[in-house]
Order: sequence, then structure tokens, then C-alpha cells
Amino acid sequence: MAQKYFDFNTLTFLLYDIHKLESVMETERYADYDKESVDMFLAAVKDFADKELFPYIKEMDSTPAHYKDGTIWTHPQLATIFKKAGEMGLISGLLDYDQGGMQLPFTVYTASCFLMEAANNHAIGYLGLTFGAAELIYNFGNESQVVDFASRMITGEWGGTMCLTEPQAGSSLSDISTTATLDETGNYKIKGHKIFISGGDHEHCDNIIHLVLARIDGAPKGTKGISLFIVPKKLEDTSGELISNDVTTAGDFQKLGQKGYCTAHLVFGDNEDCTGYLVGQANHGLRYMFLMMNSARIAVGRGAASIATAAYYASLEYATERAQGRRINNMGQKDISQEQVLIIHHPDVRRLLLLQKAITEGGLSLILKASTYYDLYHNAKNDSEKEKYNLLLELLMPVTKSYPAEAGIHSCNAAVQVLGGYGFTSEYIPQMYLRDIRIASIYEGTTGIQSLDLLSRKIPMANGKALHFLFEEVAKTIDAAGLNEDLQPFALKLDSKIKTCKAVIDHLGQFATKGAFERYISDSAIFLDLFSNLIIAWQWLDIACVSKTALLNEDKTYSSEFYESKIHTMRFFYKYELPKIDSAATILLDMDELTISREQNVFL
Amino acid sequence: MAQKYFDFNTLTFLLYDIHKLESVMETERYADYDKESVDMFLAAVKDFADKELFPYIKEMDSTPAHYKDGTIWTHPQLATIFKKAGEMGLISGLLDYDQGGMQLPFTVYTASCFLMEAANNHAIGYLGLTFGAAELIYNFGNESQVVDFASRMITGEWGGTMCLTEPQAGSSLSDISTTATLDETGNYKIKGHKIFISGGDHEHCDNIIHLVLARIDGAPKGTKGISLFIVPKKLEDTSGELISNDVTTAGDFQKLGQKGYCTAHLVFGDNEDCTGYLVGQANHGLRYMFLMMNSARIAVGRGAASIATAAYYASLEYATERAQGRRINNMGQKDISQEQVLIIHHPDVRRLLLLQKAITEGGLSLILKASTYYDLYHNAKNDSEKEKYNLLLELLMPVTKSYPAEAGIHSCNAAVQVLGGYGFTSEYIPQMYLRDIRIASIYEGTTGIQSLDLLSRKIPMANGKALHFLFEEVAKTIDAAGLNEDLQPFALKLDSKIKTCKAVIDHLGQFATKGAFERYISDSAIFLDLFSNLIIAWQWLDIACVSKTALLNEDKTYSSEFYESKIHTMRFFYKYELPKIDSAATILLDMDELTISREQNVFL
Repeated sequence: MAQKYFDFNTLTFLLYDIHKLESVMETERYADYDKESVDMFLAAVKDFADKELFPYIKEMDSTPAHYKDGTIWTHPQLATIFKKAGEMGLISGLLDYDQGGMQLPFTVYTASCFLMEAANNHAIGYLGLTFGAAELIYNFGNESQVVDFASRMITGEWGGTMCLTEPQAGSSLSDISTTATLDETGNYKIKGHKIFISGGDHEHCDNIIHLVLARIDGAPKGTKGISLFIVPKKLEDTSGELISNDVTTAGDFQKLGQKGYCTAHLVFGDNEDCTGYLVGQANHGLRYMFLMMNSARIAVGRGAASIATAAYYASLEYATERAQGRRINNMGQKDISQEQVLIIHHPDVRRLLLLQKAITEGGLSLILKASTYYDLYHNAKNDSEKEKYNLLLELLMPVTKSYPAEAGIHSCNAAVQVLGGYGFTSEYIPQMYLRDIRIASIYEGTTGIQSLDLLSRKIPMANGKALHFLFEEVAKTIDAAGLNEDLQPFALKLDSKIKTCKAVIDHLGQFATKGAFERYISDSAIFLDLFSNLIIAWQWLDIACVSKTALLNEDKTYSSEFYESKIHTMRFFYKYELPKIDSAATILLDMDELTISREQNVFL
Repeated sequence: MAQKYFDFNTLTFLLYDIHKLESVMETERYADYDKESVDMFLAAVKDFADKELFPYIKEMDSTPAHYKDGTIWTHPQLATIFKKAGEMGLISGLLDYDQGGMQLPFTVYTASCFLMEAANNHAIGYLGLTFGAAELIYNFGNESQVVDFASRMITGEWGGTMCLTEPQAGSSLSDISTTATLDETGNYKIKGHKIFISGGDHEHCDNIIHLVLARIDGAPKGTKGISLFIVPKKLEDTSGELISNDVTTAGDFQKLGQKGYCTAHLVFGDNEDCTGYLVGQANHGLRYMFLMMNSARIAVGRGAASIATAAYYASLEYATERAQGRRINNMGQKDISQEQVLIIHHPDVRRLLLLQKAITEGGLSLILKASTYYDLYHNAKNDSEKEKYNLLLELLMPVTKSYPAEAGIHSCNAAVQVLGGYGFTSEYIPQMYLRDIRIASIYEGTTGIQSLDLLSRKIPMANGKALHFLFEEVAKTIDAAGLNEDLQPFALKLDSKIKTCKAVIDHLGQFATKGAFERYISDSAIFLDLFSNLIIAWQWLDIACVSKTALLNEDKTYSSEFYESKIHTMRFFYKYELPKIDSAATILLDMDELTISREQNVFL
């Protein structure tokens, strides 16, 4: 079993030195926080992760959650995790003090979740969804809903879920058909099937509060007729006893990965007796849900980066312990009279490791960047700051959600490859991470949907102002790096790729202008690739620039080897990943139309 | 469950129209074969695959082979498969008539295995290894070894395995340490551990014949001191009864995929009583094994192409049945008053499907190309033909082994993505194929090792003559395509990528010339990517050229839609895949040295 699942130094370096957490926290809301208190908090979370999360991940994988006798069996350690996380305030951390929270900076919350998920990505989803459901109630519910439900969720006493997907409406939420009928009490009777409900049922909490999207009788068609309901698994009767609310678990989904994280098929109102409480206004359900979407999508990217990070350290550990083969000498030969070398000395193994390092640390940096934008937006001092950080956050969102997921698959795949034959065996953990990470490019909007969001909504947003702000930020990094002789070549490379990206956007814009929208978006997935590569290259240039400065200033916060390794990884990214922007651009500039549906069957 | 796992028309089109099977068969050895008899043979194999293989694949996955009470439990259907395959001559097909074989052209054998593996990649390995082991005995063993062992393997009565890997010697065969000590009978006592032995133990054959690499006492160090032994699981006593030969199964490996295909840890001679029979001459073991290596590597690529093909058809079927969302109209909107459309009409889904089609059919074409070279080499009419086809075969080998494996991962990954949330569930089969295919880039030499073979052995081979022959072949295709107006742009593109490839080879050559061998090979994996892309682009241009000619000639062998779909897929490959050659070239021409081991720790 691997020993290390993330690197604390890299996390704090990214937080303070790259993303300037201390200046992000310079706002009234975070007045109680400074570097010292954040460090203490993260150390406590790491201790929790070391003791209660990481030791159970392999067992959660090998004893999957499963449907049995009307409920879902999950690993018993989850009871401890819910309890301790509740006690430590890890579920409620983001909430206000008067809501029972810690008023954690979102960026710090992200960092804490990142390390917990690196330790155990099967368990953390339960907590994250419980908080997400509670947060919806805090934001849009009434006072009694907060008292009756949300306040008992953030302690870990009750669990929470989000119920969106239905069998006939996966990515297409406008087709949701679960119904809500006003009853004599002024509440609603809910009826319908919901599938893929993560954390949907288990026995480690006394109750589970489902946040359900449904359609009130007579509501408009499409997304404008969807309302949000609190639907508890159990209701409290007058004596305070928990009794059934006609929410039944019809079964579960066995999955490729995240086997410890249950996925339920729930049936609401099979006996016409399932009560739902409307949250906020009727027909505003999807809007409420989407207001939480940015944090949900950051969470998916964060989870993917966590998984790939854990896989990286597992393969790095293996490469430093496994002897195999010999290095090639100047005669082009291997000297078999010598001992075998550790595989970390083979160039291709180093390439596979550096690829993982470049993807996982670059991905983490992006997630923290998006998180600081989230903080800066929510605590903006004036309207222009608010607009700027909102636009930056929105623009980064599809990349933040999908880069760690998509590149993370390659990264975990490289981790498996480092182990050779052992990588294919269940005995070693990288294959589990490869399976686990596969969901990240599917849920909360598939990569295809993220790419549509990027190209059809975010790029044109506010007449291109979001993009303008972003390129201004990137230009600052390019300018700073350009001042250093060693970094200048990389600054120039990034600058030229920005120009490539702009040319591609102009080219695609022609199609939108002439109303060929399907053509405009048909290669959006390739554009997302290109744009993501650019964003991660920006992160790496920033990291290298800060590292270089630290070296020049003889800054001893981290070792000089640490700073050098970051610069090395930036160079790796610029040599091995950045050139892919050009091939993506070639594809996007190609006039051939091959993926738009026509009469002819092209699949013969 | 998916209904279709490969396309018969595509297979026969590639065999006859692209790879000119009929002219390959114009040799005395294959005198009994013509198109009609091959078609009949393949139809019979398909019938076998439909009935005995494909219906069991999901169950083999969900009830993995596993170690129990000293042996390994495998799926009972394997008994039927061994028996029927033996009866149909599918194990022995390649052997001479007088050996009990069918003298099948290797290309036809490849096609038959391809379709069987597409139906069930867990089961076919057992047959393939049994044949491989028998083939070693037929080629290098003596007459009594043939009678005593090989003749009983090709009927499916006895199984066979290859035992190379040891715990301390995975990819490094020079470090094999299993011993062989001459005994009083003139045979050897074998002692050692072998791991990752595919098909290593099960109860569906009366006996299993292991072909074991071991070191005779006093043999030279390294690969020159390795001998090959027949080591039966059981020996026949004088009364013909099968008794133990001190081969014990110490355990098995549970794996990410191919769960129905058992992987054993075998111990030879734990009680000092394990008899081995030397095959051929002492210390020639690795040479014998490597003489079979080309067919073994073709088999791995073939298996990977099979798996990806089955995944493609499973996802294609889903895409033609699942309605979800709506197309974007000229206003850039979706009209929710309309019915949802089948997802096959969404551009990104089509892209994911065409990507799979391009990879799987391109990969299959390469495998059949390599197989025809195998046939042409083994049946060459003169020395110059022999040399030419040998060099072509050798040069194509690393690509044939690794392209279907590596690109196949992307292809199966795309299959999963097409299914969205369902793709992550065990209910649907693409996730199994994604797990199954993961082994192909590891065994019979990892992709890293294939890339070393390509760059350090095959490219410089015979002073570059192999490469010269290959580019001559590619040039013929470019010339033919160039004659057609529609295809000319693609011919020009391929020609320009050939020049790119040559420039890269010249650039890398500098390092080898000055003795910087580790630098020369350090980016070999990237070179393998580039070279593979070129080879597949060549296959597609050939396919498009033949299809175009058929359309012009109003050839009705296949429908015009069929030919058009092949041309469409060529265009897809040239738009979406070929440009990656340029980014690979950029990487290879970059002078930064980042993956060669130095003192400094770059993994901080």
C-alpha cells in the first residue's frame, strides 16, 4: 500500500505563494484567518485523513456498496467519518458563524477537501453532497427548513443528496418528469424515479434529506417549470419518532469505480404518500441548483485532481523501490554484470512520472485559482471587482471541471503503466484510481457539455469581456516571466499560443455569425482541449516564475531542490504538452465538416 | 447486452480488397485456399463465436477466475470452448497438414482470432497460448516431444502456457533465475517461481504443458544462458496415469480486466521433483522464444483491436437507441417542444464514434498488413523477397503491438463516454472493455519497450533498409491516391508527414552518432506515437483509395454507402489524428533534456 497520497509542501506553496491566499483572505468575512490558523486547520484535516480516510480506501473498493433488503450496505467506517467530520466542522466549514459554520475561505475549504479526497475519494462524496444539499436550504429555504433539516445535516447526524437525473433525462434536465402535487397541508406530494443518486441510501445516518427537482402540476414545459423540494427519507411524527416518507430504494448501480460511494435508484411516492417541501419559489428550482453549480463543478475537478495525485504518489513510490533492467551506456549497451537499477532511472518511466506531476500539480493550481476567484467574487469590494471575478470564474469553470478529469485519466493511466504487469493487478492501487477517476468526466455535466458551455456561453460572455480579463491576467504572468532570462523563452511560447487561441476563436466565430451554430460548436471538445492546455501552461509559468524568484532571493521557505523541481516540471509541460495546442488549432481551422449529422450512414 | 461485436463486411473488405489476400495465398502451401473456402471458414468461426464465445463474456467478467484449494477456478464454458475449438481445428490451424493442422494462411488465422477475441477476449488467450506452446515444440522440439506433448495440445485435450516472468525479472529477461539441474535420466530438475502465467492453471484440460525459461547450472549470465524446457503439470506413469510433476499453483493475480482469463503464480520443484525436458539446444531458449515473438506481438495488437472493436459496436448500438437532448437550430437554440433526438445526432457523440471507427478499423488494417508480410516472408519465392518482407514485418512489429493497445485505450474510453452515466455502470459492457484492453500495452513488452525496439533496433536495421522499403510501400499508396482529385489533398498531407518523420529521424540520429544513446532513446515513446500515426494514416489512405476506385467502377461487392463511410473515416483520421504528428515532431525536435536521470530530485 502506498504511503503518501499528496504533498503538503506543494499544497501550501500553491496556496500562499502562487495564489496569494493571504491577500484573498484580506476581507472582513475572513478576519479570523491567517497563515498560521489555516496551516493548523489543514494539519488537523490531514491528521483526520491519515487516520480515518486513507487506511480504508482499498477496503471500500474491494467491498463495494451494494443494495440489500431494501437499503444499501456501505462500509461501516462511514459512520465514524460522518461523525468525526461533523464534529470537526468539516461539513459546515463554509457556512457563516451564526449558521454553525467556520466561515472558511472557499479556497481553504477546497484545499481541505482536496487532501481528504486524495486520501479517500469514495468517502468524501457523502460529506460533500450533504453539505451541498444543506447549502441549498441555507440559501433558498425558509427558517424552519433550516432548523428542521439543514442544521441536522451539517453535524453529520443526517445525510443529504441531490436528485436531478431521471432515466429519460440524463444530461437533458428540461425533460425532468417527476411530479409535485399540492396537498391539503400546503406541501406537495412527490412522485417519480430518480437514478444515479450518489450517497442515496445507507444506514450510517438516522435520516437522509433529498433535494429533488420536480415539476408542479401545470408548470411550464422545459427548464422553466422545474421546482426544488426537500424530500426527507423519513418524517418526524408528533412524538419525534422518524417514520417512512414513502421514499424507497429500488436498487443500486454497481460501477467501474468509486465502489465505496453508493449510487442509488430512488422511487418517490410509490404509495402516493411522499411529502416534499418546496424550497424558495415555484419554478425556480433549476436556477437555485445552478447557483450551486460552480462550487459543484469545482468539486468534481478537485476530486479528479485528488485521485490523480494519489495515483501519482503511488506510482512514484513504486518507481523508487522497484529494480528492473539497466541504463544504456555510451556504447548503446546494457551491462548485465551490474545490479539492476531502480526503474525511476529509466527515461520513459521518468517521463510517465513527470507527465503525472505536470497534470496533477497544474490541475490543482487551476482548482485553487478558480477557488480564489470564487472567494474574490463573493467578497468583492465593489461592482467592478465583482464583475471581473465573476467573469473569470465563469470562464474558468468548464476547464476547472474537465481538465483534471480528462487529463487525469491519462495521468492515472501513466501511473498504472509505471507498475508494468503489477499495475494490472488488483494488489496495487493505481488501477483503482484509474477506475475511480473515470466518473469525473461524466457527472455534473459531461466533458462534451462543458465544452459546449465554454464555446457557446463563456467565450462570447459579456461580449468577450471574460476572455479579455483572462488574457489580461495571463499577460501579467507572461510579463513577469519575460523579465527573467531563463524563463523568457517559455513566456514567448505562451504568448504565441495565446495568439493561436485568438485566431481559432476568430475562425470559429465566422460560423456563429452566419448562423451555422451546429458547425460552430461541433468541435467544441477540441477547443476545450486547446483552451485547457493554455490555462495549465499559464499556471505552470506562474509557478516557475515564483520559484525562480524564490531561488534568486534565496528564500528558504522550501528547499532549492523543491523550487528547481517546479521549474523542471514547467519545462516538461512546455516541451511535452504545450505543442498539442498547435495540432488542436490545425483541427479547429480545418474546414472539413465530418461530425454533423446528415442523411448518410457514416458508421458502416 | 450489445448484439454486434465486429463487422464481417469490414473484415472481408480489408482482407481481400485492401490486403489482397488472394494474391498472398498464391503459393504452394496455400494451394487449397481461395476466397470461397476462406469465407466458409470465417463464417464457421463466426458461428462458433456467436454461440460459444460472445454469450459468456459478461459472465466471465462478473465471475472472475480465482485461486481456490490449490488450483484456479475458471468459468465452466471453457471446457466446451477448448473441446470445440480443438475439434474445429482452431488451435492447430496454422500447422502443416502432416502435423494435424490446416496450413491456414497466417492472415486468415489472424482474421479468425480477431473475430473470436472480439466476441470473447477472456477465453481466446487460453487457446492462443496453448497453440504458442505447441508451436515451440513443433519448431524446436524432437519427435517424441511432439508426440508426447504437442499433439495432445492442439486438440484441446491439454492446455499450454509460456513461463517467462519471475518476480525479480519482469521486462528484464536477462535476470531470470529459475534453475535446471541435469538428473540421472538425462532430463532436468526445474526449480523456481514464475508469475503472471496466463492460463497457468485450471481444471478444463487433463494436463497443462508449461514452456519454461530456466538456466542450466553453470550457464552463462544474461540472456545467453537461458534454456527452454517442457515442464508438464502432470507426468504420465508407466500405466498411462497422470501423476503430479511437482508444479504447484501458489496463488493467482486478481486483475483490472480479462477477469475470466486466469493469471497464476506457479512454483516449480518445491519438493525438488519437477522434471523438465530440454527443447532444442541448451542456452538457446530465448532465441527460440523470440522466434515466436512476432506472432505473439501480432496477437497482442490483434487482441487489443478486437476489444476496442467490440466496445465501438456496443457504444454505436447505444447511440442509436438512446434519445437525449435536441439538436441546435439556426438560432443557436434547442426547441424543447420537439421530441428528444437519438444521441447519435449530436456532433460530439459522432466524433467519439468516428474516433473509435478510425482507430479500430485502422488498427485492424495494420494487423492484417503485418500478417500478410508474415505470410509473404514465410512463403517468399526468393531471397530478396524474403529480406524485404522480413524487414517490413520487423519494422511494423512495435507499431502493430502497441498502436491498437494505446490508441485502443482512447477508443474504449470514448465508448464509455458515449454512454454517459450508464457508461460508468457495470450493467453496460464498454467499461469492461476499457478494463480488458489495459493489459495490451503491458504484456509481450510494454509500450516503452516497443518504442525502444523501434528506435534503437528497427529504424537503424540493415542500415535503414527496412525504413526504405516501408516508405516505398507508402509512396505507392500516395501515388495511387494522388491520381484522384478528391484524394489528392490527403495524399499530399501524408507525403508531407513522411518528410516530417524523416527530419525527426535525422535529428535524433545526431545523438546516436555522438554516443549519447540514452538521449537518443529518451523520447522513443513519442517517436512511436508519431510513427504509428503515420502508419495508420497510410492504412486509411489505402482504404479510401480502394473505396474510391470501387465507387468509380460501380463495384457492387459492398454498398456505395459502405465505401463512402470508409472515405469519410479516412477524412476523419486526417482531420483529427494526423495533425498530432506535428506536435510529436515539435517535442522530438526540442533540445531540452528533461527525462534523463541526474543527481537532482525532480519529483519534489
